[in-house]
Amino acid sequence: MLLKAFNEPLELREIEIPQLDEGQVLVELQASGVCGSDIHMWSGEDPRTPLPIILGHEGVGTVVDIKGEKRTVDGCSVKPGDSIIWNRGITCGKCYSCTVLKEPSLCTSRRVYGISIPSTEKPYVNGCYSDYIVLRSNTDIFAIPSNTDPAVLVSASCSGATSAHAFDMIPGNLIGQTVVVQGAGPLGVYAVAFARRLGASHIFVFEGSDQRLKLCRKFGSTHPVNIHTTPVDERNAMVMDVTHGRGADLVMEAVGLQGVAEEGVRLLRKGGTYLSAGYAQPAGKESIDFYRDIVSRNIRIQGVWVSDTRHTRQALDLVLDDPDTFAGLITHRFNLEEANEALRVMKERQALKAVITKNTG
Amino acid sequence: MLLKAFNEPLELREIEIPQLDEGQVLVELQASGVCGSDIHMWSGEDPRTPLPIILGHEGVGTVVDIKGEKRTVDGCSVKPGDSIIWNRGITCGKCYSCTVLKEPSLCTSRRVYGISIPSTEKPYVNGCYSDYIVLRSNTDIFAIPSNTDPAVLVSASCSGATSAHAFDMIPGNLIGQTVVVQGAGPLGVYAVAFARRLGASHIFVFEGSDQRLKLCRKFGSTHPVNIHTTPVDERNAMVMDVTHGRGADLVMEAVGLQGVAEEGVRLLRKGGTYLSAGYAQPAGKESIDFYRDIVSRNIRIQGVWVSDTRHTRQALDLVLDDPDTFAGLITHRFNLEEANEALRVMKERQALKAVITKNTG
Amino acid sequence: MLLKAFNEPLELREIEIPQLDEGQVLVELQASGVCGSDIHMWSGEDPRTPLPIILGHEGVGTVVDIKGEKRTVDGCSVKPGDSIIWNRGITCGKCYSCTVLKEPSLCTSRRVYGISIPSTEKPYVNGCYSDYIVLRSNTDIFAIPSNTDPAVLVSASCSGATSAHAFDMIPGNLIGQTVVVQGAGPLGVYAVAFARRLGASHIFVFEGSDQRLKLCRKFGSTHPVNIHTTPVDERNAMVMDVTHGRGADLVMEAVGLQGVAEEGVRLLRKGGTYLSAGYAQPAGKESIDFYRDIVSRNIRIQGVWVSDTRHTRQALDLVLDDPDTFAGLITHRFNLEEANEALRVMKERQALKAVITKNTG
Amino acid sequence: MLLKAFNEPLELREIEIPQLDEGQVLVELQASGVCGSDIHMWSGEDPRTPLPIILGHEGVGTVVDIKGEKRTVDGCSVKPGDSIIWNRGITCGKCYSCTVLKEPSLCTSRRVYGISIPSTEKPYVNGCYSDYIVLRSNTDIFAIPSNTDPAVLVSASCSGATSAHAFDMIPGNLIGQTVVVQGAGPLGVYAVAFARRLGASHIFVFEGSDQRLKLCRKFGSTHPVNIHTTPVDERNAMVMDVTHGRGADLVMEAVGLQGVAEEGVRLLRKGGTYLSAGYAQPAGKESIDFYRDIVSRNIRIQGVWVSDTRHTRQALDLVLDDPDTFAGLITHRFNLEEANEALRVMKERQALKAVITKNTG
Repeated sequence: MLLKAFNEPLELREIEIPQLDEGQVLVELQASGVCGSDIHMWSGEDPRTPLPIILGHEGVGTVVDIKGEKRTVDGCSVKPGDSIIWNRGITCGKCYSCTVLKEPSLCTSRRVYGISIPSTEKPYVNGCYSDYIVLRSNTDIFAIPSNTDPAVLVSASCSGATSAHAFDMIPGNLIGQTVVVQGAGPLGVYAVAFARRLGASHIFVFEGSDQRLKLCRKFGSTHPVNIHTTPVDERNAMVMDVTHGRGADLVMEAVGLQGVAEEGVRLLRKGGTYLSAGYAQPAGKESIDFYRDIVSRNIRIQGVWVSDTRHTRQALDLVLDDPDTFAGLITHRFNLEEANEALRVMKERQALKAVITKNTG
Repeated sequence: MLLKAFNEPLELREIEIPQLDEGQVLVELQASGVCGSDIHMWSGEDPRTPLPIILGHEGVGTVVDIKGEKRTVDGCSVKPGDSIIWNRGITCGKCYSCTVLKEPSLCTSRRVYGISIPSTEKPYVNGCYSDYIVLRSNTDIFAIPSNTDPAVLVSASCSGATSAHAFDMIPGNLIGQTVVVQGAGPLGVYAVAFARRLGASHIFVFEGSDQRLKLCRKFGSTHPVNIHTTPVDERNAMVMDVTHGRGADLVMEAVGLQGVAEEGVRLLRKGGTYLSAGYAQPAGKESIDFYRDIVSRNIRIQGVWVSDTRHTRQALDLVLDDPDTFAGLITHRFNLEEANEALRVMKERQALKAVITKNTG
Repeated sequence: MLLKAFNEPLELREIEIPQLDEGQVLVELQASGVCGSDIHMWSGEDPRTPLPIILGHEGVGTVVDIKGEKRTVDGCSVKPGDSIIWNRGITCGKCYSCTVLKEPSLCTSRRVYGISIPSTEKPYVNGCYSDYIVLRSNTDIFAIPSNTDPAVLVSASCSGATSAHAFDMIPGNLIGQTVVVQGAGPLGVYAVAFARRLGASHIFVFEGSDQRLKLCRKFGSTHPVNIHTTPVDERNAMVMDVTHGRGADLVMEAVGLQGVAEEGVRLLRKGGTYLSAGYAQPAGKESIDFYRDIVSRNIRIQGVWVSDTRHTRQALDLVLDDPDTFAGLITHRFNLEEANEALRVMKERQALKAVITKNTG
Repeated sequence: MLLKAFNEPLELREIEIPQLDEGQVLVELQASGVCGSDIHMWSGEDPRTPLPIILGHEGVGTVVDIKGEKRTVDGCSVKPGDSIIWNRGITCGKCYSCTVLKEPSLCTSRRVYGISIPSTEKPYVNGCYSDYIVLRSNTDIFAIPSNTDPAVLVSASCSGATSAHAFDMIPGNLIGQTVVVQGAGPLGVYAVAFARRLGASHIFVFEGSDQRLKLCRKFGSTHPVNIHTTPVDERNAMVMDVTHGRGADLVMEAVGLQGVAEEGVRLLRKGGTYLSAGYAQPAGKESIDFYRDIVSRNIRIQGVWVSDTRHTRQALDLVLDDPDTFAGLITHRFNLEEANEALRVMKERQALKAVITKNTG
């Protein structure tokens, strides 16, 4: 399914896949996640998007062919028939970010399947809204158990990995702590799951959809709060009540709308941390009183940008540890030909998570 | 119950409690844990033990009286009738360890109720094998929910807190990692619980008692291994199998017998961490090949000594999060007059954890 | 010298010092620093200031008398004749911040000599603009070499310690890194010294006074930049040039004026850290584009509030390592009776650092 | 100069250099360090050594030719005439160590120029005891200032980088701390330089050569101690004296002989860290009393194995910051044809550091 012009429907096209180069892996896609950022690319809001492009950066599939040898991150030879997932980003491994900082997510030549590689570039099938994808030799691959529903795993490679990146930046653990998650899209739901898995005792979610709040409870949220029915002052008071008036130890922002950061930072206790991961595209400016909000309260604000292979692995392990609960994240499933419909339900926020799965009919 | 001579039975004595000093808190004990180290003190193996002494350093009780004002760590005024637990250690707050290192567990003037304060020192009731204890003004106190069984909480203030200290010294989280716990006494069981709570996917326990292994499974151990039926090579192979031949990310030693460290260090992957917390009294020397075992494999060995208020709080939160499972840790309950019997079942390893509870009959 | 009404001259008064309580130390002051925040207290801008008060929170003196025993942080008995410096803050050692977070600088009952204790409170001499001060028993004291000029050491207990706190919050070292310090008041000068001492290769200072820039060069600044002659774009370009276009690894804000944070955050490389310590009183709001400035660049902003005993010790060691260079920080010296003049030269920014020293005439 | 048989002299051979592959860089060597481990390889003690081989893993040279484009770690295009240094290790960038742990020094397929690549493997010139070397495309390269003596820089890529790796594993800084370095070979000298650069106030060196101790003083050692004239008890007492009886904060082992670790661990204060980097080949077993030496004192022992690009860069920056002092490390210089003589002076410990430099005669 090819995006040829912004805001136009994707078009079904047949593309001939060229002979594989050394280390490349041909994969038949089993499931492709439809991500919120796909909507932004579709509408042309994301300046990184080249045209034409096959969208889709969250994929799980079955290996069809390998040229030469290719090993997974765990050191196993990739073989035809293997179920695999992969780091959606391809990084150079040679720059200052990759070698000195050891932060490949900051690699300046990072490229992403389905986001920044057009379908005019060999081997053409560079996105996941497709029957097949060819993974380049420098793609980091994980084998997955064949008995797991591929649709449940796809989000691990995007919102799951970004959430893992956020929680990987806090020192120590969350035992007994109070965490607030702002927003319960896939990123926020993963944040709830990570907070719970890392020991938090009190997990607030501030969100407008009761359905999503209900899901968050299953992931371990002790205090799902509907922002439409609970005003700012009241939800602030709830956090203060649980924390003996101190405020939250950690707030994770997973919304990306103006004003959210201002509310979030004030919920923190002195010395607390604000993880901001939801501003994936421009959303205007936040007004921050450095003296009152940051300095006099010893606050840390940490921006979180995308993720790398380490985080993909952490998210994958999180999902594999409890796939049944994560299955609840998926609200809609479509065939490849229905990709435009999938984009629509995501755009209209009918879906929490839509997944394109292989037509097994 | 007073220890007047090593290896002799404790004797029941009435002691008159003096008037409280400013900040002191008189507590009626609801539950006192019998710790493995009590056995060593009873037999005179622990050089810190003064005589005569009221043993018992793990206590939970009800506040009877306070002189002046005393606040909990959370800032609430302590009132008669409150259920409380406390950090068993009293530290100076002024030395290099307390102020510069911020490691009060290393305070050189640290004293411990039931371990290092004799009953000849005012206010006399300085241990938990007693109906009452007087907490000094520099004791750190936590309020506990009144609906929780006090017996379930006592171990949080000793083995739980020590285990919390161990896990507090590792950077980052354990998502997806493989952890081996050596030994399933209370310290090891807490280690399993922490490893699980902090995200580990594969948790081995190496232990000789099937009953304890069964309990560990409830706490999240995925691989409980009986060392009597599974020889060293075989259990090593099990760890390598799960980790694609790399070895465990983390091994926690909770045994304290000669040879244990040698086995444990070799189970680690390159760059792994060995937390050693079980050597609470002399156990001879370990033979370590620095080149092979440590340097060429980039291994970290971290000794863990006792705990502080931060760790007591983490352990307390861990237990309060799942008191039903922790109730399974307690195998025996006794009245205060039966303290000698409690020591006997611990010494003969019939009990995993014995607790002295208030005679409510 | 007593502050009885805001904006009025301090008045010389004789105060009778009461008998010492247990653990109190009577100190004859040798040197007292005049801090920028003294000016704000004098003018009533700092809401913490009670009246009447003896200002002065940076002191070095000679022990005259001790009631009972008092030990330094290093465990030595304090004796009459000892030269000492101390942590200006007094913290409770019992609250959540002190015991669980181990961040006494966040202690909610923190009190500070010369800032928050009025002269009506026993033992009355609670500030350093005085011949004598009485240190309470819970004050953390360091012995200092008797051959060091006391005036050189005073700033270690305030701006030095705050700067130490800032650098204590970054993980790892600064070997080879590029650091920008915004502002070269005492806080900024210490930041230059710490950055140099912790391995930074390129140290920019953005400052308006050539005299201060000259001093910063002595402390290790490789790029002292006058903001009046080098416009924003140009100084940004200088940083990019040195860092191969990446931006600074670390920016430390030591100014506290509106707009400074906005410039500083943009100087950072992806993944860089902004330490903000200069906003010691309200300065209005900063306008931050979370997407562009923080999230998409994985930036950390860390507020830094005051300091504790650990930081005082680090600053003290820094100064003792190179007292000759730090002597250059002091531009003016006054007798106690000239305290109003000292405040004036600080207020009018004639002085970088004024110190009140004992009249030895 | 080719090593064809262990313990036999290296032989001068002409080797035809094949056409470069994509990304390969042909370098004319300006300086090659003779490392202590070269002696072990020469004598066949290091099991990694294939035959025949061109030894030499520490090189600095001038670019002669590049096939295609190659960029430095800082992102600049490599051009003929550039002076460069490089990470001696080549890692896969794809395995668990490289991607999930972000520890390329633990990469299982790590290969090292002059250590593990025989001269029978294309492009043949795989070591630095040579006029030319061909760097593979996945080698990480740093440009160096053309006005720096290449001989001074070579050690940065081996002992310097390993020492950087050690100091990169300690959290926080060393301001005011006491460090003991065991051994003053190149690794130990770098440790002194790093300890000083990261803020340590008291730096002991335990070493048998007065000449090396004298050099260490130039690098910032405050307490150079000759182990032949100062017995164990006495040097222990010196450390205790400086630290108010606490012991050293950090001990770095740079010797690798039996018994050294036992002495070193006991010099530590409670909670201190032992960095062990000197056991580069088997040296027998150390006898460690876990209770007394590690657990009851909360000690950390950290093995340090080789290094990666991050550490090479840190060492390089350290040297470039003060090349004059580092020039003092070099005691002998030889032409390439004198390589056997260079090995001899290192083996007989006449040299602290020998360097083979280009015959400019």
